[in-house]
Amino acid sequence: VDDGDNNLAQELVNPLHNADIADLFELIDEDERAPLAGVLGDLVSADVLAEMNEHVREDLIEVLEPGQIADLTEQLETDDAVAIIEDLDEGEQQAVLAELEPEDRAAIESALTYAEESAGRIMQRDLVAVPEHMNVGQLIDYLREHGDLTTEFWEVYVVDPSHKPVGTCQLSWILRVPRDIAVADIMKREQTLIPVDMDQEEVALRFQKYNLISAAVVNEDGRLIGMITVDDILHIVEDEASEDVLLLSGAGEGDINEPIRDSYKARVRWLIANLATAMVASFVISIFGAAIEQMVALAVLMPIVASIGGNAGTQTMAVSVRALAMNELTRSNTRRIIVREFRIAILNGGTIAILIGIGTALVFANPILGGVIALAMLINIVVAGFAGIFVPVMLERLKQDPALASSVFVTMITDTMGFLAFLGLAVASGLVGF
Amino acid sequence: VDDGDNNLAQELVNPLHNADIADLFELIDEDERAPLAGVLGDLVSADVLAEMNEHVREDLIEVLEPGQIADLTEQLETDDAVAIIEDLDEGEQQAVLAELEPEDRAAIESALTYAEESAGRIMQRDLVAVPEHMNVGQLIDYLREHGDLTTEFWEVYVVDPSHKPVGTCQLSWILRVPRDIAVADIMKREQTLIPVDMDQEEVALRFQKYNLISAAVVNEDGRLIGMITVDDILHIVEDEASEDVLLLSGAGEGDINEPIRDSYKARVRWLIANLATAMVASFVISIFGAAIEQMVALAVLMPIVASIGGNAGTQTMAVSVRALAMNELTRSNTRRIIVREFRIAILNGGTIAILIGIGTALVFANPILGGVIALAMLINIVVAGFAGIFVPVMLERLKQDPALASSVFVTMITDTMGFLAFLGLAVASGLVGF
Repeated sequence: VDDGDNNLAQELVNPLHNADIADLFELIDEDERAPLAGVLGDLVSADVLAEMNEHVREDLIEVLEPGQIADLTEQLETDDAVAIIEDLDEGEQQAVLAELEPEDRAAIESALTYAEESAGRIMQRDLVAVPEHMNVGQLIDYLREHGDLTTEFWEVYVVDPSHKPVGTCQLSWILRVPRDIAVADIMKREQTLIPVDMDQEEVALRFQKYNLISAAVVNEDGRLIGMITVDDILHIVEDEASEDVLLLSGAGEGDINEPIRDSYKARVRWLIANLATAMVASFVISIFGAAIEQMVALAVLMPIVASIGGNAGTQTMAVSVRALAMNELTRSNTRRIIVREFRIAILNGGTIAILIGIGTALVFANPILGGVIALAMLINIVVAGFAGIFVPVMLERLKQDPALASSVFVTMITDTMGFLAFLGLAVASGLVGF
Repeated sequence: VDDGDNNLAQELVNPLHNADIADLFELIDEDERAPLAGVLGDLVSADVLAEMNEHVREDLIEVLEPGQIADLTEQLETDDAVAIIEDLDEGEQQAVLAELEPEDRAAIESALTYAEESAGRIMQRDLVAVPEHMNVGQLIDYLREHGDLTTEFWEVYVVDPSHKPVGTCQLSWILRVPRDIAVADIMKREQTLIPVDMDQEEVALRFQKYNLISAAVVNEDGRLIGMITVDDILHIVEDEASEDVLLLSGAGEGDINEPIRDSYKARVRWLIANLATAMVASFVISIFGAAIEQMVALAVLMPIVASIGGNAGTQTMAVSVRALAMNELTRSNTRRIIVREFRIAILNGGTIAILIGIGTALVFANPILGGVIALAMLINIVVAGFAGIFVPVMLERLKQDPALASSVFVTMITDTMGFLAFLGLAVASGLVGF
């Protein structure tokens, strides 16, 4: 499309939604992105950039002057503008901020003072707040007269004279009552207020739990300073949940648009960590070198014990990590969940032990070897069940992200335990000498 | 709390939000749930049940009569009522439906005719639809006069005489213009209409992509039959994203409240599948039995090659599965992503190969063994990169869920390839005889 008829390209893209134009940029090859942006010109609006994957956006923005970036961000709501500016490097950030209108600059600078991924970064400052004494008629007149208010809002916040929120009023409630009813009479007083420094994952959990559409953000003094709307939360829920899959697998951010160098750095760290833990398992095997020389079948079978143990550990770990992320696994029910996982481990371990025990006894015509592998398997699956829950819970209590580091520890435990139980039992049973 | 003072328990629970009461039931032990429900009585309202984990809810509902369940569901919106009734078994479903008011019964029966996890199951029927010719004043009067309309809505749908949606109007737009403006002049004509049979995961992607708050659901004829609101989508996004973590790990539904029998069944299947694939890897090792007898170091080192290969494969697989779920990995960019993953695999493989090659050469005082394991490692990590992307993409093209079965295949490939490359190269290099 983009190597011939520029007008045709524009015509084709024109009817598309901003999000679809952003998708188009993500789908094409990296080296085609800048030329396409050139051809499309103004069609690549600020809103298109806001919808774009951050890595793809960075590529496009790199070539722009600070003045151009400032013009683009001024068309956006604070939260989207912050999302673009926070990805720039320090010097460029300053240059763009200097080009902004004083009011916008102040808003963005103040947002940037809050921690990344905190409520302060994702909130927008444009909202509708009204005093308690207003009635519905006055509120409607106020909205009709003030054309400069934000266009996207779903709830109106009612504040006291010191600008502290006292209630929230859904727009549908306002539309359904006569003009002379006081706003204070239809507002909901129990609100979910979001402290400005709350982590975005926690904010997302509140939205999910209380089915919120928007929520008021308050500063340390309890004053209303912004609002967060559910459309932004939808992306956060998706990101945070995806993050867990990717962290558990050691794939880092796991974004297919991430620069290769970053992906390499994120992943190789975990492979190196895995190398270290695999060496611990290898060391265990090396202790039993003489046993393996006597019976090569041990070398043939030992990876099975480790592999299935690892799989069982990963199952329990995935369940625990999700439950921790959803605040479903707390101090008050940890014991119950451990008992639950123990029971499942006994059932799983028993089933697999019987299968592999009988199979091995038959294939190798050696019932003792069958018994050894069956018992080793049962032990390793039970250990895996405990490890899959203990490791994430311990990491959480040590204020670490359980999704990030659990895998390495759990695999180390199941590998080492698998080899130790199997080879150790082989020696203990008198199957081989030591 | 619940074994002494019933009034105190009620007083403590009374100020809590429905979602918090539901959480309370999820946190306590299974055998304490029914007694607590007895003590709390009416505090366990229909809304509390709607917020509850489905397994916990099933336990509580089991003891109720169909008439009581019917009374509870009548207080809920269609989507929440359906969520409760769809979990009952066939006979009980009929009994509850028979007890419902004819109108509610019709709504729920018709929702149940749509496939599970389709738009038809999650939509609610109560919505506000107005004809095109209405002006804002008439719309406000209509809303004020009709007390029986749904209380929770964020947008009004404008329909033509055949009840087909022609536009959507956010409530904030209605509140900001004078009474004499026609609704048709402020509505947005480009709408995201949801076909009633669309899968809920696809619906959630639309909401995320187009930042929707609510969306109109249409039947095959294009007529408006319901609406889906973003608060329900938030739960679906969370569920679907969690599902991927849990499916990838083979943990089934992975809900800590799931009955143990169900968890066992879900997990043991994958452990048995893993047993089968581990046996393939074992078979490869058994071919090289003579080589291992000559050099036990091979048995000591071989799990390292398999384990790190498996880890690298899981990384790529997690990235691919997420990209597929988000519709970011399509036919048009598969080649580009494969090239990207190949480059990362070369970098990762090269790094790990150098580390393990030098380490092995030194520890075993055997440079050839170091060279063999380094090359085997590089090969296996590159194979893992391909497998991690090919397997999920192929499963997707075969209309299977890539999250569900990818793990087993990828692990089989990396295990088998790890042993084959390492032991095969050991023989090929003349390190050991065959």
